[in-house]
Amino acid sequence: MPLSERRLIAEIRGAVRGGDAVVTGIGDDCAVLRIPKGHEVLVTTDFSIENVHFRRDWHPADLVGWRCLARGLSDIAAMGGEPRAAFLSLAVAGDIPQPWIRRFMTGLLDLAGRFKVPLAGGDTAQSASGIQADIVVIGSVPRGKSILRSGAKVGDLIYVTGSLGGSAAALDEVARLNPGSSRGMRTELLRQMRPLPRLLAGQWLRQHKIASAMIDISDGLSTDLSHICEESLVGADIEATAIPRTRILPGKEPEALDYALHGGDDYELLFTSSKQVASNISGLNVTSIGRITRTAGLRIISDGKARRLPVYGWEHFKKRK
Amino acid sequence: MPLSERRLIAEIRGAVRGGDAVVTGIGDDCAVLRIPKGHEVLVTTDFSIENVHFRRDWHPADLVGWRCLARGLSDIAAMGGEPRAAFLSLAVAGDIPQPWIRRFMTGLLDLAGRFKVPLAGGDTAQSASGIQADIVVIGSVPRGKSILRSGAKVGDLIYVTGSLGGSAAALDEVARLNPGSSRGMRTELLRQMRPLPRLLAGQWLRQHKIASAMIDISDGLSTDLSHICEESLVGADIEATAIPRTRILPGKEPEALDYALHGGDDYELLFTSSKQVASNISGLNVTSIGRITRTAGLRIISDGKARRLPVYGWEHFKKRK
Repeated sequence: MPLSERRLIAEIRGAVRGGDAVVTGIGDDCAVLRIPKGHEVLVTTDFSIENVHFRRDWHPADLVGWRCLARGLSDIAAMGGEPRAAFLSLAVAGDIPQPWIRRFMTGLLDLAGRFKVPLAGGDTAQSASGIQADIVVIGSVPRGKSILRSGAKVGDLIYVTGSLGGSAAALDEVARLNPGSSRGMRTELLRQMRPLPRLLAGQWLRQHKIASAMIDISDGLSTDLSHICEESLVGADIEATAIPRTRILPGKEPEALDYALHGGDDYELLFTSSKQVASNISGLNVTSIGRITRTAGLRIISDGKARRLPVYGWEHFKKRK
Repeated sequence: MPLSERRLIAEIRGAVRGGDAVVTGIGDDCAVLRIPKGHEVLVTTDFSIENVHFRRDWHPADLVGWRCLARGLSDIAAMGGEPRAAFLSLAVAGDIPQPWIRRFMTGLLDLAGRFKVPLAGGDTAQSASGIQADIVVIGSVPRGKSILRSGAKVGDLIYVTGSLGGSAAALDEVARLNPGSSRGMRTELLRQMRPLPRLLAGQWLRQHKIASAMIDISDGLSTDLSHICEESLVGADIEATAIPRTRILPGKEPEALDYALHGGDDYELLFTSSKQVASNISGLNVTSIGRITRTAGLRIISDGKARRLPVYGWEHFKKRK
């Protein structure tokens, strides 16, 4: 697809400018970035693959582009870092309409613009079938100050930002809608699926030395909490009633808890701290949901009783449990 | 593919250690890299997609892995940079045999080991079909010293390292072989297709302030020379007889020239210089093939006559011209 590839590159080139990190952008063998003195470099890469991470018949193209970049920015947030530049590798089959690609880029660049992250390069290719995007985000953080998954200590409190489960619940609802359903309902549901990476909160937590360990919730609370516990060699107790749930399905409490525990793609921050943390960080709700324990494994406390919390790996388009 | 994904990650984790750039590798939201003081960061990303960049029935898995990383390292070489860490995003369909993935990783890690480039992270995913790999290489270069495509000056000499056309010629020969052909012949042909990125030569050219512009030859001499000319706002004359050709087809001179001019995937360096450059840089042949001109466009001089050199975009698995 030499022609549309060239068009794509033309659209990307200089589409977003921001920060002062990019010395040389698209159009050379490598991009050249300048990182602030005394900073270390953060690198994250994330795939967005058609029929694995999104479906063209469910997800509007601009939402796919937005979420593609959100995944990378959220990883930078989870380290307490600042994004410096993004790189998009995009493989597209010959039968994908050019307007789809344009809307995908619009969504991606919309989010990039909000955080002033320049798109500084990447790769384009014809794919054998469908769409495969790989987003790379380069960030930076003052030397030795990254917030890792491995720093949780026994007795630390466990916190989450925002509320959980909305993205997974919305996805299941979209799956249930008839193709003829009202556009308004679909749009309202999809609004749940346009996450804002918690970059400011992540940086605030680093600057104030609050978080002992941090991760973003991309695979679901149970899975991502288990990652912190494994890397920190600890366990965790969480309180069922404390978990902030996104309620998009009125009157369905048990489902909302299930989505909040195991639904992916929320991109909120999950962190531990030895301190009592304010319930609001730069306008974002923060909720204490439990405590780090010496005993390995995850437990959920409900009606005064503790039971083992199963860790369901979040899979897109598969009903959990 | 949660299980094989976990196995894959286990294989990658700590498989290659080298350099001292990686502070935190696989197993957190981002990798954390330390870049030498006074250096800028180089970033390059390159897809390797089944049935676009390779075919499983032609290319041995270890060669695919080797070439996947070679593409990224070659981009670092073309800036005069030093590689610091590599990141692999790998999407694999459920029906790809696990041993194929293992051999792919063996080839990739073999090359990584030769240049002591640690594999510091990436992403794994189930693909909807086939194999899609995206390699990211992070490098560094002293501030302001990157060798760009845009620095060629009128009157500069044009040089290439090594010899050209071998990879494309070998690919066409493999395509012509019967499935029953001797393994030895196939192996000998494929040897042509295992490029060594010219990292040392690229760094030497930067350190000695030799190259005014540089690019790696991944899309063919004509295409990549046109990139230098476009970015530098100049033209070029090259001498047909001067172009160093890889001769894998005895007695086929015209074909060898055609492959050398338009065949891709050689990963030699193409650079310009106002100086006479020695014919050997750290054991690697360097050949002067022409001169940068004020007149735009590319011309090839043969038997004392200049004619326009067409720029064929190199496409894998398509016969050129």
